[in-house]
Amino acid sequence: MTMTIMDVSSYAAGEWVKPGAGARNIASAVTGEVIATAGNDSLDVQAMLDHARNVGGPNLRKMGFHERAKMLKALGQYLTEHKQKLYDISFATGATQGDHGFDIDGGIGTLYVFASKGRRELPDGHVLLDGDVEEFSRHGTFKGQHIYTPMQGVAVHINAYNFPVWGMLEKLAPTLLGGMPAIVKPATATSYVTELCVKLMLDSGLLPEGALQLVAGGTGDMLDRLTCQDVVSFTGSADTALKLRSTPAILQNAVRFTAEADSLNSSILGPDAEPGTPEFDLFVKEVQREMTVKAGQKCTAIRRILAPESHVEAVIDALRERLAKNVIGDPANESTRMGALVSTGQRADVLEKIAILGTEAERVIGDPDNFEVHGADREKGAFLPPMLYHCANPDAATKVHETEAFGPVSTIMGYRDLDHAIDLANRGQGSLVTSLISNDPDTAIKVATGAGAYHGRIYINNRTSMKESTGHGAPLPHMIHGGPGRAGGGEEMGGIRGVKHFMQRTAIQGSPDMLQAIGNQFVPGATEKPAPAHPFTRTFTDLEIGETITTDARQITLDDIEHFATFTGDTFYAHMDAEAAKRNPFFPDRVAHGYLLLSFAAGLFVEPNEGPVLANTGLDDLRFMQPVVAGDSIHVKLTVKRKTRRTDAYGEVRWHVTILNQDEALVANYTLLTMNAY
Amino acid sequence: MTMTIMDVSSYAAGEWVKPGAGARNIASAVTGEVIATAGNDSLDVQAMLDHARNVGGPNLRKMGFHERAKMLKALGQYLTEHKQKLYDISFATGATQGDHGFDIDGGIGTLYVFASKGRRELPDGHVLLDGDVEEFSRHGTFKGQHIYTPMQGVAVHINAYNFPVWGMLEKLAPTLLGGMPAIVKPATATSYVTELCVKLMLDSGLLPEGALQLVAGGTGDMLDRLTCQDVVSFTGSADTALKLRSTPAILQNAVRFTAEADSLNSSILGPDAEPGTPEFDLFVKEVQREMTVKAGQKCTAIRRILAPESHVEAVIDALRERLAKNVIGDPANESTRMGALVSTGQRADVLEKIAILGTEAERVIGDPDNFEVHGADREKGAFLPPMLYHCANPDAATKVHETEAFGPVSTIMGYRDLDHAIDLANRGQGSLVTSLISNDPDTAIKVATGAGAYHGRIYINNRTSMKESTGHGAPLPHMIHGGPGRAGGGEEMGGIRGVKHFMQRTAIQGSPDMLQAIGNQFVPGATEKPAPAHPFTRTFTDLEIGETITTDARQITLDDIEHFATFTGDTFYAHMDAEAAKRNPFFPDRVAHGYLLLSFAAGLFVEPNEGPVLANTGLDDLRFMQPVVAGDSIHVKLTVKRKTRRTDAYGEVRWHVTILNQDEALVANYTLLTMNAY
Repeated sequence: MTMTIMDVSSYAAGEWVKPGAGARNIASAVTGEVIATAGNDSLDVQAMLDHARNVGGPNLRKMGFHERAKMLKALGQYLTEHKQKLYDISFATGATQGDHGFDIDGGIGTLYVFASKGRRELPDGHVLLDGDVEEFSRHGTFKGQHIYTPMQGVAVHINAYNFPVWGMLEKLAPTLLGGMPAIVKPATATSYVTELCVKLMLDSGLLPEGALQLVAGGTGDMLDRLTCQDVVSFTGSADTALKLRSTPAILQNAVRFTAEADSLNSSILGPDAEPGTPEFDLFVKEVQREMTVKAGQKCTAIRRILAPESHVEAVIDALRERLAKNVIGDPANESTRMGALVSTGQRADVLEKIAILGTEAERVIGDPDNFEVHGADREKGAFLPPMLYHCANPDAATKVHETEAFGPVSTIMGYRDLDHAIDLANRGQGSLVTSLISNDPDTAIKVATGAGAYHGRIYINNRTSMKESTGHGAPLPHMIHGGPGRAGGGEEMGGIRGVKHFMQRTAIQGSPDMLQAIGNQFVPGATEKPAPAHPFTRTFTDLEIGETITTDARQITLDDIEHFATFTGDTFYAHMDAEAAKRNPFFPDRVAHGYLLLSFAAGLFVEPNEGPVLANTGLDDLRFMQPVVAGDSIHVKLTVKRKTRRTDAYGEVRWHVTILNQDEALVANYTLLTMNAY
Repeated sequence: MTMTIMDVSSYAAGEWVKPGAGARNIASAVTGEVIATAGNDSLDVQAMLDHARNVGGPNLRKMGFHERAKMLKALGQYLTEHKQKLYDISFATGATQGDHGFDIDGGIGTLYVFASKGRRELPDGHVLLDGDVEEFSRHGTFKGQHIYTPMQGVAVHINAYNFPVWGMLEKLAPTLLGGMPAIVKPATATSYVTELCVKLMLDSGLLPEGALQLVAGGTGDMLDRLTCQDVVSFTGSADTALKLRSTPAILQNAVRFTAEADSLNSSILGPDAEPGTPEFDLFVKEVQREMTVKAGQKCTAIRRILAPESHVEAVIDALRERLAKNVIGDPANESTRMGALVSTGQRADVLEKIAILGTEAERVIGDPDNFEVHGADREKGAFLPPMLYHCANPDAATKVHETEAFGPVSTIMGYRDLDHAIDLANRGQGSLVTSLISNDPDTAIKVATGAGAYHGRIYINNRTSMKESTGHGAPLPHMIHGGPGRAGGGEEMGGIRGVKHFMQRTAIQGSPDMLQAIGNQFVPGATEKPAPAHPFTRTFTDLEIGETITTDARQITLDDIEHFATFTGDTFYAHMDAEAAKRNPFFPDRVAHGYLLLSFAAGLFVEPNEGPVLANTGLDDLRFMQPVVAGDSIHVKLTVKRKTRRTDAYGEVRWHVTILNQDEALVANYTLLTMNAY
């Protein structure tokens, strides 16, 4: 078969730009043949930045959070329909079909999770509130509210070669959801896969103009042109992270810079997880998987295996047995368990690093000069076998805690006790993830509090969770991905946490009316807007934030209290026995049940006839502020707090409810949730 | 009077170290005489770091959040008792008694606010949960929870000269509350005030060993010795921020670095705030105050005054009138409204900067060569008058948007419309604060969404809030202080947000039992612990997280529903009219009231007799999941979710409550709050 060499183009300011001067060839990881060419020195990076800032940003900011979430879902659906094309092109990177599951399906899954979280956890609008209203004035005329709004520049994403699809989408999903345009720069070695994915997304017609651009090849002096409204989000080696972070313009303009770098991740076999326990077998399985998935080219892979000294040999034996079944070869073959590294250059780098590890540790499994490759040429392709090193003296060693061989390589070391294990895990000076395989909750507490500060993620697995666990090395869109120190000091994903990275938090101070206008949510103390009719008769669309009714009053009698107690069965002494109630520090006498007050309040404000209110779906933040005794009367203020569209037919209305007594003193307040037709 | 020259000592590794080789003299801002000496080149900075990391950190981490909050409150009380000493020594910095209110009282107030927020908003324990449990497994055996734990290094605080007390305490309060030790390095010019404050705090005996150290003078190579567990928090000029941020060890180890730098803050007079409105007068008053408080040496001061073009002249005239009454002189005199700058060196710097401003703007108020100083020597002291510049062409100008004269200096410029005003405000390329004086909520929305991304704080003031407003330039501990770009790209304070800066966020994944153990909070799906007796009969102390009872069932009859409706007055059609209920998308038939379910649930789980449960204080996160129709029966599971000590006599217990129907399907769940005796 004659292979056509692919042109990997950039997508710049609305145009596809083919490779040009300075383009680099890209070889197949499996055959070593040149399959693509990428890069163009004359790319106009300033035009790209301008296009993102002046076209993409405004286009995205016109949309609200929910519109952008819907766009992500549609993108996910479009890519799902076309994912076979991505699978087909990805084998040349050395990845197996199993690896594609992480990269391609995992990437699309990230779009879906952010779409779903965007709809459920973000407001139907443009401003995200952060925390509650802050009260700092006696009469409530001046208050505070933190908000997030989209940053007005561009997010530059610089990605690693190992996950050409997931690596792009895990950054792109939160960026677009936050309302920022992105310029994506994949690593050249696998940029042909990313280019195809970008083409698909652009072809879908779902993205507004300027929201997404692509740099195939180098970024030129793009980073020197960044300002305080831009963000750089980098994934790759710690060395490159340092170089990029040191860009003068980034330092000078305090450009937000997130790095997610490879680190010396570790996995701890708990002291309880002796050979013969389900946890021991689980541990061996997790380690084997992390060593072989993507041929060990994962920033989260287990580089350091920490086992009780007495079990080190048993772990090595078990791993040897499992790894013997690991078929290495052409990733396109179904029987292949582990494919090639991305390039022969990368293989040479791993060989260099294991030479360093070899000065402190002994190789006990795998031989780079002697292993079998099925269906491909061992020398032309970038193949390596899984290799395990054993470090007998991890306290004196330094290289094993700082040198990363970015391939199917790991080092096992014994620990004396749990404190020693935690100390060794922390010797990595910051990692993306450490795992603990243990069935003992006390061990988990010690690891979380002793090692938490050094690791972005702690993955705990045991017999209970093993069937549903997602794997030491798999970052989930729900959880943060990143870590301190050597791991880059950044955070990505983590649900809405990751979206905030592309927004600016601003403290707003002002009168309740001003905070209400900005946040599009009722703020106590704002000017009261009398409802033009009973709000239960008004549609979702008609209801206005701040619209209020005040009900008639109802007196609470002792009969009411006794009757409620008998009817419901809630005969708590504070309602039934005056002397006992008076002994209680909170009550002056027999008091009305809290639920009686809620129920009577509903009786006061509910409009009984069919109308736009469909259901009471819940209640939040109820606090009882003052007891009600027989003879007191209550009345209710009901105010529209917030509106959120939920389906094509109805949306959620949140109501601020206050129950007041005959002296206008606050008895209780809460947020009521209803579903209302449009 | 013969003045003794003060030795400003460092407090290093538990010892006071006097000035030594390399010490610098400090002159009075008012008289120019040398009053103190500070610095010692042979300070052992490694010993200080070790002391903080190995003694201070472990000591603080032994305490929980609430203990550390109590410590802050006690420190505030101790400093309040001794604040006269701080006032007395502070006049020599050029500050008036009014200025001391911001620095000394403001600093102590910060301790109180963090103490209070720590008790109310942080858990009674060592691990802070971040967000809810994340669900990503079908059967719920593997879940996620984000946590914060204290970083295990040291926080190095590098402070500016203008607020020697507040500047230290606004950083120290969140640091200590988070569980990190601090090394404080004040600016040398006013370090004698900081030293006294540190002495007082150490004398109080309230701080554990190693929690607080002081560097008077330079830090030597301390920053080169920082690791991934340390934090640098800097306040000062943008130039110094850049220099420190570029420290190789900080870049290399991804050391968390926060800068809060002077910026070209602006204040916008709203288009609606014409002369004659309360807002116009308010604007003039705010500007005048920001120009003169601390002689304009505030990182938050208004450097750019943005007024509608047609009102520029009126603003200048009104400012001229107000500033004429500004008595400049010896800050210790009661009649003085504005004292001196901190040093003659600082005065020279301001003169240099106004020469630059003068190339683009015309001085319309104040003359540095011709102004009156009362009770002090104009040349020997570092005095300057308030000076206003007018920039007629702010679009073409660049210096007025980037050159900061750090003294009583501001530049007024006219804007054409609100978009122009926002554009000019954003021309500062990131600021700590912009203010808007306006009575129009739509203007506020436009400024918040148009300028929010460029400013850490937006201060809105009008006739409603003016009596209680806290001032454009006053950062509050409740709200974040910091801003993007030129403002340093950092955040401080903002309540608990600022505490998190000294903690590491870690994603924990594991089985419900593991997450429950680490978070000390019930996680649905965790192994059920049957309560040994009815939990309402067990004290706060005895109750265990996860302890559960399951109640008997109760059938709901149509009579119950009708009776509840009549009794409470809640005759909503979904309860009363079968045909109407069936037309509703949520209900199959007439359904029980949500409050009926809550009330019957309480009837099922309440233990009526006097016991440790004192009161039901509230309810959170109630969601109705499934309707209940006549003939259904319900039963309840009540589980101890979390315990928080509140007073000496009782604490809050949160209960996870689930209401289930006859098919064990979830009808509703919520969190119930009670107060329980110990």
